[in-house]
Amino acid sequence: MSIRTLIWNENRHEQTNALVRQLYPEGIHGKIASTLAGPDIEVATATLDEPEHGLTEARLAATDVLVWWGHKAHGDVQDAIVERVQQRVWQGMGLIVLHSGHFSKIFRRLMGTPCALSWREAGEVERLWVINPSHPIAAGLPPYFEIEHEEMYGEPFSVPEPLETVFVSWFEGGEVFRSGLTYQRGGGRIFYFRPGHEAYPTYHDAHVQTVLRNAVRWAHNPAPAWKSIANAPNVPADKAPVPLEVKGPTLHEAGQEGFR
Amino acid sequence: MSIRTLIWNENRHEQTNALVRQLYPEGIHGKIASTLAGPDIEVATATLDEPEHGLTEARLAATDVLVWWGHKAHGDVQDAIVERVQQRVWQGMGLIVLHSGHFSKIFRRLMGTPCALSWREAGEVERLWVINPSHPIAAGLPPYFEIEHEEMYGEPFSVPEPLETVFVSWFEGGEVFRSGLTYQRGGGRIFYFRPGHEAYPTYHDAHVQTVLRNAVRWAHNPAPAWKSIANAPNVPADKAPVPLEVKGPTLHEAGQEGFR
Amino acid sequence: MSIRTLIWNENRHEQTNALVRQLYPEGIHGKIASTLAGPDIEVATATLDEPEHGLTEARLAATDVLVWWGHKAHGDVQDAIVERVQQRVWQGMGLIVLHSGHFSKIFRRLMGTPCALSWREAGEVERLWVINPSHPIAAGLPPYFEIEHEEMYGEPFSVPEPLETVFVSWFEGGEVFRSGLTYQRGGGRIFYFRPGHEAYPTYHDAHVQTVLRNAVRWAHNPAPAWKSIANAPNVPADKAPVPLEVKGPTLHEAGQEGFR
Amino acid sequence: MSIRTLIWNENRHEQTNALVRQLYPEGIHGKIASTLAGPDIEVATATLDEPEHGLTEARLAATDVLVWWGHKAHGDVQDAIVERVQQRVWQGMGLIVLHSGHFSKIFRRLMGTPCALSWREAGEVERLWVINPSHPIAAGLPPYFEIEHEEMYGEPFSVPEPLETVFVSWFEGGEVFRSGLTYQRGGGRIFYFRPGHEAYPTYHDAHVQTVLRNAVRWAHNPAPAWKSIANAPNVPADKAPVPLEVKGPTLHEAGQEGFR
Repeated sequence: MSIRTLIWNENRHEQTNALVRQLYPEGIHGKIASTLAGPDIEVATATLDEPEHGLTEARLAATDVLVWWGHKAHGDVQDAIVERVQQRVWQGMGLIVLHSGHFSKIFRRLMGTPCALSWREAGEVERLWVINPSHPIAAGLPPYFEIEHEEMYGEPFSVPEPLETVFVSWFEGGEVFRSGLTYQRGGGRIFYFRPGHEAYPTYHDAHVQTVLRNAVRWAHNPAPAWKSIANAPNVPADKAPVPLEVKGPTLHEAGQEGFR
Repeated sequence: MSIRTLIWNENRHEQTNALVRQLYPEGIHGKIASTLAGPDIEVATATLDEPEHGLTEARLAATDVLVWWGHKAHGDVQDAIVERVQQRVWQGMGLIVLHSGHFSKIFRRLMGTPCALSWREAGEVERLWVINPSHPIAAGLPPYFEIEHEEMYGEPFSVPEPLETVFVSWFEGGEVFRSGLTYQRGGGRIFYFRPGHEAYPTYHDAHVQTVLRNAVRWAHNPAPAWKSIANAPNVPADKAPVPLEVKGPTLHEAGQEGFR
Repeated sequence: MSIRTLIWNENRHEQTNALVRQLYPEGIHGKIASTLAGPDIEVATATLDEPEHGLTEARLAATDVLVWWGHKAHGDVQDAIVERVQQRVWQGMGLIVLHSGHFSKIFRRLMGTPCALSWREAGEVERLWVINPSHPIAAGLPPYFEIEHEEMYGEPFSVPEPLETVFVSWFEGGEVFRSGLTYQRGGGRIFYFRPGHEAYPTYHDAHVQTVLRNAVRWAHNPAPAWKSIANAPNVPADKAPVPLEVKGPTLHEAGQEGFR
Repeated sequence: MSIRTLIWNENRHEQTNALVRQLYPEGIHGKIASTLAGPDIEVATATLDEPEHGLTEARLAATDVLVWWGHKAHGDVQDAIVERVQQRVWQGMGLIVLHSGHFSKIFRRLMGTPCALSWREAGEVERLWVINPSHPIAAGLPPYFEIEHEEMYGEPFSVPEPLETVFVSWFEGGEVFRSGLTYQRGGGRIFYFRPGHEAYPTYHDAHVQTVLRNAVRWAHNPAPAWKSIANAPNVPADKAPVPLEVKGPTLHEAGQEGFR
């Protein structure tokens, strides 16, 4: 069964900037979609300006892995939609956050931290080192790969300690960056991948494409959706694994919902 | 120098429930404050109904560790204040979240997950096992301690994997719970501690009091506030650690702010 | 392609104790082998008394996941073989350590800690709670499952903080235990699973069998063996990613091996 | 009360190499000792050629934090002494492993992995970036600091995922390295710090000295020694927290020691 992958793109630079349009005539989402499509990955795309940003309940329910690219319009993404995406991640949908998506509402909400960093747009060399060559996201990669022109992102990257550090980047201008990080939030696996400035042909790079394909496979959680993850069920005393008599004083009345 | 500790309490049950008022005539906050006060810990309290919930910018700036108790009125805490508290945690303020605070806005925001669990109010025995007796939060404790009457919280507790698991609880009714968990978010250390149902005299328990004192000391980060944590500074090419000539195409104009 | 799984058993209790022999007429390894065998899992067994404990270089090289059961004869396992197994784990072989294997040489070496715990053989009830129902190792399990008679293992379990806590056990006698823990060591994924005392029919339990099958699938790393993991290659200055002139004083001579 | 700190040095290069002797006339241990000595840190030194390598039971018992520098003579350290040091770390002694100590027996044993890396002695620039400026080990440091001449260590560094990544290094020749990592093993806090090649004046650098002082303070665990950490106590059924009648079949006899 193939992995139902939805590539979401803000798709604004493509409308206003000739350079970006020339690099990605079908949009960044189009390029990533054609990169990912294959026997085990089924692709679809969605963009900011579609109704509900193309992220309806039904569509998210039918998505195994969501890829997110955003930059200048993070603030235009509606909070209610962000919450919906977050809930679907908790239930088990994988999420791959790309490049400037570090400041997206969805990533910041899932991390609980600012997700800030330093940056420079100078077209410098980025060299990504593989920290664990046995990690599924590093499958088929050499010990390191280079991107000739990239935007620099520098530490400190204010995110929580990751589950695993998969890549660390070296920049020509002297900075370093933890450029591939994994997280788990509820049933959802999250991968942040640094490269992908819209002014450079990064998503045409074969190594970057390999990472994207690997990441989709890694982020796919085949478990049934964990729909009850945000529930707080009451377990009555007589239904406890070891049934009990209620003792001591009581505040809640029987059958009452918990407070939120 | 003593640790400036602010105990925040929703303080609603105390107003409406005779049982809680009898257990905590000075409020749960009052009881915790008198427990914590000592040569190295300086205490103050704040409650929901004070202006700005007693959590003004100035007060938070002068707080090293914030202790949080809330239950039935999580929804009444203003989002803007929650954001303010979160920013102060990022800068280095410690945060101790107690019991039903698992569903507080501040804890859920910092975790990025639902923070749900199962529960039962049956006055059953809770036995807290120390997982690492060398952990500062476990200083002075026996291998385990018991609370005669407590509310049950059961797994799955939908939080991220913690930095450390300090306590795990056994409940008479058959459940278990990871009842002492540590996290780091930016400069701030966070400790979640399970016990503390308002209908029982939990905060009168000597072991619980020891944990609270230890936790304040552990959560205190003496580093200067990390005020720039949410900034995304641009580092111009000529100011890079290894100064550069700009190469390749360019999207941003010189001196431009990054997008958010 | 099926997962080449080798079940290793000390196989001593079976020789000397009628009770164990009756529960496991084909040995604990035999029972686990027949449990695991299936379309995607190919099984073989090895025991302590075979030459090289049945763990030759060739056999390990052809093993994707090793399952380890040992108890009274940990000390009889030769150090050289333990080292060989450890190296194969580093290269990517999965390892599933069962029950009393917590004190095996291989587990203690991979953890770097004592791996001690408290224990009691009283045939009491163990109830295993699933901490993350979306974890692959928990696939197909209910929120908790019970084993009617088990040996108790109690905290503190002196192991490093795991990558993930998958199960926590409740015992009738009042203890708790982190009974399903994952680790990564080099390319190898490690899962410790608590149940399995030789005096009880634990491996006949359907839920336990589900965990074993899930764990084999989870521990399988399809990456090519990371054979260079223990190497410390010298990268000469003229072969650096950014070729250099040697500067400053020098201690090593050109082409010299690093010290170990 | 001051932190009783023992600086251990292999002290071999100093005997055979004029360059090293000139940089460190009192030995690397002597230089580190004079760096660390202060109102809250009490220093002593020990070297490989002393009886028992200067690491007697009594001396380790009276040590709060051990600093380790070794390189060409890792193999000369006796296994029995390594085991003794490891046990003391488990009990709560802090351990700071410097530079080429990555291949020391003690570090490899505590990590359970090869601890390998790539390397180059070319006197190139190392720039250490602070990942979390609020971390106690980073107190008083600027966002990054540079060492003019250092040996390069490159990823992959085959260690387990750390508790925290404190520093990441950029090298002139194009590599990166996670150069400050924290771990917890039992009661003991471990910090690996990369810089310190014997052919360069690294330990004369003020920033490096700041890190060393901070690390000693961070690694100090004031808890009483966890002497029982490797014990596996039997808890008889009638002494269980919830006393039990023994049920089901039995293998162990009453009062019997557990197997190891």
